[in-house]
Amino acid sequence: MKATGDLQLLKRINRSVLLRLIRSQPDLSRARLAALSGLTKSTVSALVRELLDEHWLSEAAAPVATQAMGRPSTPLNMDTSKRVLIGIEIAVDCVRLVCVALDGAILTQTEEPLRDPCPASACQQVGALVRLLCQQLDEKKLLLSGVGVCLPGAVDGALGLVRLAPNLGWRDLPFMAMLEAEFAKLGIPAAHIHLQNDADAAALGEYEFGGSGDDSLIFVNCDVGVGAGIVLNDRLFTGFLGTAGEIGHSILQVEGPLCSCGRKGCAEVFIGARALGTAQGVAQSGRYLGVLLQNLDAMFNPHVIVVGGRSCIEHPCLIEAARTHQHAYAQVAGLQSPQVRAARFGVQAAAVGAAALVLHQFLRPLLKEAKHVSRN
Amino acid sequence: MKATGDLQLLKRINRSVLLRLIRSQPDLSRARLAALSGLTKSTVSALVRELLDEHWLSEAAAPVATQAMGRPSTPLNMDTSKRVLIGIEIAVDCVRLVCVALDGAILTQTEEPLRDPCPASACQQVGALVRLLCQQLDEKKLLLSGVGVCLPGAVDGALGLVRLAPNLGWRDLPFMAMLEAEFAKLGIPAAHIHLQNDADAAALGEYEFGGSGDDSLIFVNCDVGVGAGIVLNDRLFTGFLGTAGEIGHSILQVEGPLCSCGRKGCAEVFIGARALGTAQGVAQSGRYLGVLLQNLDAMFNPHVIVVGGRSCIEHPCLIEAARTHQHAYAQVAGLQSPQVRAARFGVQAAAVGAAALVLHQFLRPLLKEAKHVSRN
Repeated sequence: MKATGDLQLLKRINRSVLLRLIRSQPDLSRARLAALSGLTKSTVSALVRELLDEHWLSEAAAPVATQAMGRPSTPLNMDTSKRVLIGIEIAVDCVRLVCVALDGAILTQTEEPLRDPCPASACQQVGALVRLLCQQLDEKKLLLSGVGVCLPGAVDGALGLVRLAPNLGWRDLPFMAMLEAEFAKLGIPAAHIHLQNDADAAALGEYEFGGSGDDSLIFVNCDVGVGAGIVLNDRLFTGFLGTAGEIGHSILQVEGPLCSCGRKGCAEVFIGARALGTAQGVAQSGRYLGVLLQNLDAMFNPHVIVVGGRSCIEHPCLIEAARTHQHAYAQVAGLQSPQVRAARFGVQAAAVGAAALVLHQFLRPLLKEAKHVSRN
Repeated sequence: MKATGDLQLLKRINRSVLLRLIRSQPDLSRARLAALSGLTKSTVSALVRELLDEHWLSEAAAPVATQAMGRPSTPLNMDTSKRVLIGIEIAVDCVRLVCVALDGAILTQTEEPLRDPCPASACQQVGALVRLLCQQLDEKKLLLSGVGVCLPGAVDGALGLVRLAPNLGWRDLPFMAMLEAEFAKLGIPAAHIHLQNDADAAALGEYEFGGSGDDSLIFVNCDVGVGAGIVLNDRLFTGFLGTAGEIGHSILQVEGPLCSCGRKGCAEVFIGARALGTAQGVAQSGRYLGVLLQNLDAMFNPHVIVVGGRSCIEHPCLIEAARTHQHAYAQVAGLQSPQVRAARFGVQAAAVGAAALVLHQFLRPLLKEAKHVSRN
């Protein structure tokens, strides 16, 4: 029994190794996959067959000649036409739902007001949206790989708990179990459900679907508050108590203006949405955002910093102002500027990130398991 | 051939699993080890036998009765009487060498002025110190497990290169290979050599020998400059270009006083040794150090922050002043203060950390290998 479990895990690891190689390099052949993975050609062939049958992979209709001599090979790629991921963001005032392909392309998106922030009502609203979407997927013969849900609060993803979501008024809530029960009640087909904080999800969305798989990556979310999701060593980094990335409450100005948290001179005082009211506000906020980016670079030295959130959409010049100041800081010290770019998914960053969470966990079988919902 | 290599790696992994369990819990029995590790009792017995023979482990002279019924068991512990680690810090003005037991206890320590900062001369000086120490170890019949070397600069530990050590005037130097050649010339017995940045080494020293194995841990080094070594997820985190932890150049005061780097308001301006000249200087520096600790907590949320370095030795009240201010910041925001403690090894922090590097890598066989020096 145990040996069978070990072999199944080994197989899942090998499958994920192949999928991750194929994601990173287009048009790989089975022979190249064997060479890159260290697996035997027969193992690769068997696993690729499975992944094709399950619509994770697609292959070109006809083999193509390789540059070197030898048999023509058949290029393999992720199948972006059949499998989909659902991502849901429960925000303070609305629910966003996206359905994305395995490459992050958004197939459908829905946004509606959050009708009632009470957890049971939010569960029902999410359940109804997912059931409707599943019916549409059925009609189009698309396969659902899983559902990711994110919200503004401290989350224990492994246990499926919301520890504290002050803006929703939620505390110590077994939200994943509640969603499972709701999905089961509505007859939604069995699917893995994943739960995560919204900024963390957005960071994973940029990491998985941003195009370059940059490690490490920091996603800076500019809204009423300013927070960050951090991907290090191919994993979310959330700190000892789950509060890593509270960059809005790092201090940029000792004895500066009072912050809503009670301290003085926090980044949020200068960069939060409330500071962005006027045209001058944007220029000044951009300057302070530049300082914050420079501090993130000094502390984490990440490969890339992605800046997004509602404030960036409402004030398109904010990022450029920050970048200009950050660049000036680097230049005066004779240092290389870190790579700073705008979020790819705009207002959908967190919802797409929730969908990315499904893929992220599937490709890393050794991460703590998402719970599996079954109607049995 | 390949299968043999795989089996050897598996064996090293299993040995390291057992050693790490024994380090974390004193007096484990073979039966408990099997239960905790998931290895069979016969595998555990064989590996423990090897580790006893090689003096990594020691066992009590006589079995003790267990609380539960059943056969008495023999408690196992790390052998702190036979194997030693050598750690060397090449500082700007001196060379420090320590010899420590497997629990970090310092057996001998030496400090002498760095005679000449030219790399070849530094190599010779280190070689002479190590040869002398090896002779003493021979006389005492102690076994050398490896040599760790650290210095103030950007280091590629895996390749054994010093990328840039501005205060030594070194750049792009194959320093590990130079040390290997010097050791071989002097007839120093074959030993693993490891190379690392000094603040990173000090962080590992606190992590491996600080007593609690706290993950994540940030070591803040207060000297002329202010830098940090960061241990996350049981590994050093050094960032994309190796400059993570440059906390002395995070900005605490926008448009503050000019820093030596050309920017304004960097932490170093307020906390660096030059700012600590007067009694008032210490009080003010302590306050800014408190802000820096609060910012580290907001960004990383580490399990523990360890504060050390020369300034803490010269100004013993610095840490307490910082802690008081940090605590006040947390309190006003209704947050838990992060755990902040003084460095355990004082002025020897980096040298002991270099020794810890040897053990850290031995216990993690999947980390990139240190190069092995052989006289053949």
